[in-house]
Amino acid sequence: MAKEQKKMVDDITSMDEDFAKWYTDICKKAELIEYTSVKGCMVIRPYGYAIWENIQKILDSMFKATGHKNVCMPMFIPESLLQKEKDHVEGFAPECAWVTMGGNEQLEERLCVRPTSETLFCEHFKNIVHSYRDLPKLYNQWVSVVRWEKTTRPFLRSREFLWQEGHTLHETAEEAIEETERMLNIYTEFCQKYLAIPVIQGMKTDSDKFAGAERTYCIEALMHDGKALQAGTSHYFGNGFAKAFDIQFADRNNKLQYPYQTSWGMTTRLIGAIIMTHGDNNGLVLPPAVAPVQVMVIPIAQHKEGVLEKANAVCDRLKKICRADIDVSENTPGWKFAEYEMKGVPVRVEIGPKDIEKNQCVIVTRHNREKTFVSLDELETVILQKLEEVRSGLYEAALENRERRTYTCKTMDEITKALEENGDGFVKAMWCGDEACEDKVKEITGVGSRCIPLEQENISDVCVCCGKPAKKMLYWGKAY
Amino acid sequence: MAKEQKKMVDDITSMDEDFAKWYTDICKKAELIEYTSVKGCMVIRPYGYAIWENIQKILDSMFKATGHKNVCMPMFIPESLLQKEKDHVEGFAPECAWVTMGGNEQLEERLCVRPTSETLFCEHFKNIVHSYRDLPKLYNQWVSVVRWEKTTRPFLRSREFLWQEGHTLHETAEEAIEETERMLNIYTEFCQKYLAIPVIQGMKTDSDKFAGAERTYCIEALMHDGKALQAGTSHYFGNGFAKAFDIQFADRNNKLQYPYQTSWGMTTRLIGAIIMTHGDNNGLVLPPAVAPVQVMVIPIAQHKEGVLEKANAVCDRLKKICRADIDVSENTPGWKFAEYEMKGVPVRVEIGPKDIEKNQCVIVTRHNREKTFVSLDELETVILQKLEEVRSGLYEAALENRERRTYTCKTMDEITKALEENGDGFVKAMWCGDEACEDKVKEITGVGSRCIPLEQENISDVCVCCGKPAKKMLYWGKAY
Repeated sequence: MAKEQKKMVDDITSMDEDFAKWYTDICKKAELIEYTSVKGCMVIRPYGYAIWENIQKILDSMFKATGHKNVCMPMFIPESLLQKEKDHVEGFAPECAWVTMGGNEQLEERLCVRPTSETLFCEHFKNIVHSYRDLPKLYNQWVSVVRWEKTTRPFLRSREFLWQEGHTLHETAEEAIEETERMLNIYTEFCQKYLAIPVIQGMKTDSDKFAGAERTYCIEALMHDGKALQAGTSHYFGNGFAKAFDIQFADRNNKLQYPYQTSWGMTTRLIGAIIMTHGDNNGLVLPPAVAPVQVMVIPIAQHKEGVLEKANAVCDRLKKICRADIDVSENTPGWKFAEYEMKGVPVRVEIGPKDIEKNQCVIVTRHNREKTFVSLDELETVILQKLEEVRSGLYEAALENRERRTYTCKTMDEITKALEENGDGFVKAMWCGDEACEDKVKEITGVGSRCIPLEQENISDVCVCCGKPAKKMLYWGKAY
Repeated sequence: MAKEQKKMVDDITSMDEDFAKWYTDICKKAELIEYTSVKGCMVIRPYGYAIWENIQKILDSMFKATGHKNVCMPMFIPESLLQKEKDHVEGFAPECAWVTMGGNEQLEERLCVRPTSETLFCEHFKNIVHSYRDLPKLYNQWVSVVRWEKTTRPFLRSREFLWQEGHTLHETAEEAIEETERMLNIYTEFCQKYLAIPVIQGMKTDSDKFAGAERTYCIEALMHDGKALQAGTSHYFGNGFAKAFDIQFADRNNKLQYPYQTSWGMTTRLIGAIIMTHGDNNGLVLPPAVAPVQVMVIPIAQHKEGVLEKANAVCDRLKKICRADIDVSENTPGWKFAEYEMKGVPVRVEIGPKDIEKNQCVIVTRHNREKTFVSLDELETVILQKLEEVRSGLYEAALENRERRTYTCKTMDEITKALEENGDGFVKAMWCGDEACEDKVKEITGVGSRCIPLEQENISDVCVCCGKPAKKMLYWGKAY
């Protein structure tokens, strides 16, 4: 048994040896994805897609609870429509996939496969919004988008990815800003409470804003290897798009006004964040809220009389309170332990003849491999406790990793030294507000600006780079 | 009140006057869709999309209950991959949208936006199936596909449409055929039980099969105007695709074999079927199972003391057992009646001061406008009965329409006469099996072969067209 378990584990490269390979090993071996002959496009396999379905279910209900409605826009954008907002087209045109032929005929105007859908929503809003009574419009859609990236990695950067994109339209700037912040808070709650991933809330610097946005809010998470990952963004557009697309409404005084707009999105890269935040050398570790299987029941000595019957009964009881499954295959228990550890199942229940004699089972939590003997009379209560323990255990470990890897620096030398001594991580340092300093910090130390955190601290009075008066404290880091 | 109601109704063209215009009026005015600047691509608006979400929820749980798992394939197919199966590429290449540029660069190989995903599934199956232990594979995906149609109509024929496509792979032909039939039965149950649309189960003739299929099963429904609509298809491929894509597995005797394959799909055109089966001159009529709002509560004289409070209490009670909503806007009750009739809400609850005095409310069912006075003590019981009454009432009316419009004919003259006298409908007539006769029937009478029904009848011994011995009874009709 021990040998087989060892073999399974050997299949995954150690994360200390090669983090990138460890990551793709997990993607492939936990059967989350498979490559295809279209570069940068992947098959999301049943186990991976089930994680996405759970993400969708939770987020969708959070969106609906805050008054948003789902719609579906076309996947194509005519080139002339994309060009209407100047900054937007500049940002996206270089990475558009272009449809130029329909059947055997050349199209009169080429169509881009949506990289994002602001322009389509604007066209639609122009058609359906006429009066303040038509506002706000609180829309969302679950679709895939395409961005023609040069280098690609499963979930983190793929040419096609799945996401949700919220698009809202409001009477006033205040309302739109409130919406932008509300969605940032929903994203934060989702990551921390359901994915057990702690995040920093912040705002992008001007150089890093979404193409066409006045403000881009974001949440930033720190991965196991000390690199940052942007987990969600929420943009405030002012009325720039409304002006470019000539969307106007009659206000309460019957005067024509331009409405204010937002958009916000989260993508399948969240699955990448889950892998790199919680995974270990035995494979995936899934937060219970999105795990396709939360509890796997494994019968021990299943050929012995009464074992399978009892194990099935335990599984049936568990199915009433969580996503439970049982493996009654001919594989050894050791093989099964390794398999479901690799697949990140949060809790495992073992039950064999000796346990049955004692009216008990063994519960093992994936993240810390802790074993508990539990009376079958208390099965449901303890399982729910254990699932919560996994969640909070994962969150605390991720927070601990982030805190250990967050370096407060007053000078460029301090940055370089901190990174050299402790490895990649978040750097907190002051900034004068000048883009040239952002660039220079990155050039010299290797870390770019991640965000201006909403929660500011005063580390020093001067910019870490130029020594001029500092305006903001920034999080810096290398990013996925 | 009566006047306003009239006005609302006037907005929709009468179906007897112009059925096509009546249809698009409903699509637009019930806010199901909106046109866009991309020809043949539409915005599915919140009310339309909520119907699709309900369809998805029910179908998805039927798929999962029969062991299918959701996956997600790329949206692009390299031209060389599409070309691997000869019949398939011939069928689909003429209506593909082609991506030829990524960013500013010409692609080395052009990519088609999936019109259907058999080729992608085949490529994936080849990668992951090696042994009989890997079979069956029972997959499904919910995505949008693109077919470059010349003439387009909302839901019925659009260049982009939403659908589910099931793709399965099996050890034996028998198993695959069983799967094809199982899914046809699930489609039938879904249409009849949930959408209240009666359907004919049948098989397409060879000339009408899916490109690359050995058999195409289908369900055919008859619309209000006597035209047929194909509501779902289920294809058996034999091992033709497996051979073209070189998918092989080691069987139980360790010999390499080609597996057998199926695919099956239902699309957003179901929403078109709902409109044209159940709608009337007052607008949409929705089967309760997929109606975004099943019961709309309308307070009468809502400015009077206690009315809004009571109406809200009624709505809150209803929300526990169904999708209920309340309209407390300043519009008149008459306006609200017309509005929610137009939107097809199955059941309306009216409650005013007089009703409150008597501890009652008024329940009106959309399909027959029947009024019932109900004690509030029995509210929940009666509402559930009424929802079921709407469902069965819709089903029976649709079945009655189909039966009235189904003509049994022995000769070409009988066909022409039946259609002339009674209008479009299904024609049941015998067929010799020769494609030339199919073409000739269509040319002379205007009705094409819809399907070879699984339930056969012997109408005559000879082909309706050539007089030679008949092989099968066919359903004929004009189709959407």
